[in-house]
Amino acid sequence: MRQALVQEGFEGAFLFQNITRFYYSGTMQPGVLYVPAAGDPALLVFRNVERARDESCLSQIIPCGSWRQIPALLTECGNPQPQTLGLEMDILPVQQYVQVQRLYPSSRILDVSAWVRRCRMIKSAWEIENLVAAGEMVARMIEEVPAFLTPGLTELELAALVELSLRRQGHQGLIRTRGFNQEIFYGHILSGPEGVRSSYIDSPSGGLGTGPAFSQGAGPKRIRAGEPISIDYCGCYNGYVADQTRMFSLGPPADEVLKAYDAMRRVQEVVRERAKPGVTGSMVYAWALETAEGLGYRDHFMGVEGSQVGYVGHGVGLELDELPVLGARYDLPLEQNMVVALEPKAFLPKHGMVGIENTFLLTEQGFIPLTRASEDFGVL
Amino acid sequence: MRQALVQEGFEGAFLFQNITRFYYSGTMQPGVLYVPAAGDPALLVFRNVERARDESCLSQIIPCGSWRQIPALLTECGNPQPQTLGLEMDILPVQQYVQVQRLYPSSRILDVSAWVRRCRMIKSAWEIENLVAAGEMVARMIEEVPAFLTPGLTELELAALVELSLRRQGHQGLIRTRGFNQEIFYGHILSGPEGVRSSYIDSPSGGLGTGPAFSQGAGPKRIRAGEPISIDYCGCYNGYVADQTRMFSLGPPADEVLKAYDAMRRVQEVVRERAKPGVTGSMVYAWALETAEGLGYRDHFMGVEGSQVGYVGHGVGLELDELPVLGARYDLPLEQNMVVALEPKAFLPKHGMVGIENTFLLTEQGFIPLTRASEDFGVL
Repeated sequence: MRQALVQEGFEGAFLFQNITRFYYSGTMQPGVLYVPAAGDPALLVFRNVERARDESCLSQIIPCGSWRQIPALLTECGNPQPQTLGLEMDILPVQQYVQVQRLYPSSRILDVSAWVRRCRMIKSAWEIENLVAAGEMVARMIEEVPAFLTPGLTELELAALVELSLRRQGHQGLIRTRGFNQEIFYGHILSGPEGVRSSYIDSPSGGLGTGPAFSQGAGPKRIRAGEPISIDYCGCYNGYVADQTRMFSLGPPADEVLKAYDAMRRVQEVVRERAKPGVTGSMVYAWALETAEGLGYRDHFMGVEGSQVGYVGHGVGLELDELPVLGARYDLPLEQNMVVALEPKAFLPKHGMVGIENTFLLTEQGFIPLTRASEDFGVL
Repeated sequence: MRQALVQEGFEGAFLFQNITRFYYSGTMQPGVLYVPAAGDPALLVFRNVERARDESCLSQIIPCGSWRQIPALLTECGNPQPQTLGLEMDILPVQQYVQVQRLYPSSRILDVSAWVRRCRMIKSAWEIENLVAAGEMVARMIEEVPAFLTPGLTELELAALVELSLRRQGHQGLIRTRGFNQEIFYGHILSGPEGVRSSYIDSPSGGLGTGPAFSQGAGPKRIRAGEPISIDYCGCYNGYVADQTRMFSLGPPADEVLKAYDAMRRVQEVVRERAKPGVTGSMVYAWALETAEGLGYRDHFMGVEGSQVGYVGHGVGLELDELPVLGARYDLPLEQNMVVALEPKAFLPKHGMVGIENTFLLTEQGFIPLTRASEDFGVL
């Protein structure tokens, strides 16, 4: 982070968001993290200072009674008034921005969010351990599905049992997203043609959900025999998210469904054969799109016709919508220790959503899967 | 909303947030809602126009290809360029604010969020129906608890079973909060002295959670005999949230626990005897505080000593943290058809969190409970 600040000419950055503060400090206790381009970061804590000290390994953890005290406290610990100051303008509400402007009326305030997000793309060994554990969670859940996915269930009843499995494994429940107006509850369980319907979040899949107030994912629809059932759910361990999709049906599905599933697995295979450090997100997307089109899925790839998204995957970590995006216009080269969810999916209006998703760690050897449930289409 | 715009001198307001758009339009499909002080609102929709039309009863639902088209589209449907424009600055990220400034460089942009929040305080008959249904959900769940709360469970395992009950009843899962850096997963299940620990969100209760990455609510801690177990969980129906807390223990709890519970129920009773349209949130808080202090809970009321919050309740609706706040400094008179969660709680360092919470509808007759589970301390 400090390297990015120096390189981009910031003298310091104020980090307010829970996840960003946690990433850089180890604690989410309420406060503000100041990262100077030179010198030690200072965590100013509004409440629960002792808990912040228990949780964080930063050396400067300073109680702060109010926003107004921030400039004086930072000066006291050796930080001159910054001329150029970074804020995360992708998530910081205007009210907080205006408060910072009042505290630093002569500073130039710039957007540091792209750098915060880029730093987080590369996962540490500790982060990878957590992502592995999150991947194991969703793999174990998939092993349990045949025991409880029985005829007569609604999507919501199936979701309830999937979530029971995950919570018993220690899943924290909440899955964080960063984008404005993005939100998710574990992921999406969809069945049949109703499942292809696009919705309000930036995701290839939508579905009916429970109604217009939560029009995504599982809903009260009863699962019918032979329909494709997709379980696109996130594991989460120590805050880290692994995203996985697997397919089931009650009784044999239509041939078109199995054909589409084979095609999406073929897309995954093509990407896995070619992905390595140095290729770009847009290259991965182009390979996936070209393969899907070659197999006859041009109008059904990554969304129902008219609502197709321009990506085939996304970074995961503490948030579900991290960088890099495996999509058009993402031309930064992929690097070792990035972790991405690759999710080739076909949306068949007559049958439903059919696809596969795995979370991969990028190494010199290519994509290593962290979500290792069997990829067989589970016909129950 | 239009009355508030006229009164406050706004010519129009742009509403971007999912929940605000849903509240005023009935749909969350991606877009922007423009509400002029005079004339009909226009919903500009970026994607899924057909779905937006299915879900919304607004007459002007207009496809919009990008942000740049917004001014022209609004002019076309009879809206002159506004001189004073409202945005929800409490939740709108700076990046989106800057985009609006570019579209309307000569308009004065002001914060309309207080008015959006105030409009939503008063619930319609339809909203109240949904809140009643949400209340029934958590009441039924509490009835089921004795069947699954058995010795040996961890908090997380208990949470998993509580959530199973709620999901099977059609709960949408996701509970929305509005405040920056606020977040919740259903609510909090806490047990024993560990449960009194304060955490990062603005809430009287915190708890250990699953770790520093999600340091609130249920965690891997095993529930011990005799400990107070609090189930503070939200029902949710058609997006509307009812908030309820009930107490259990495995075997008889300490006398201090039962005494504290009686005291918190007495606080609730005092408030219920006096609450009616016209009293203020700060008056309710003052009565609650005075009663709690009189009963000997000055240092333990609404948070562990040092982290006590200055309120005893909050509005609920589509978001968990709505207005009014039943707290110090909230001097607007309460009105009929407001819905609030009243949650007197005592934090006993030796024993744990002990309290009661109900969601009430305010009528001419006072507070009518929407969460109707038995208030007996459930000794199992």
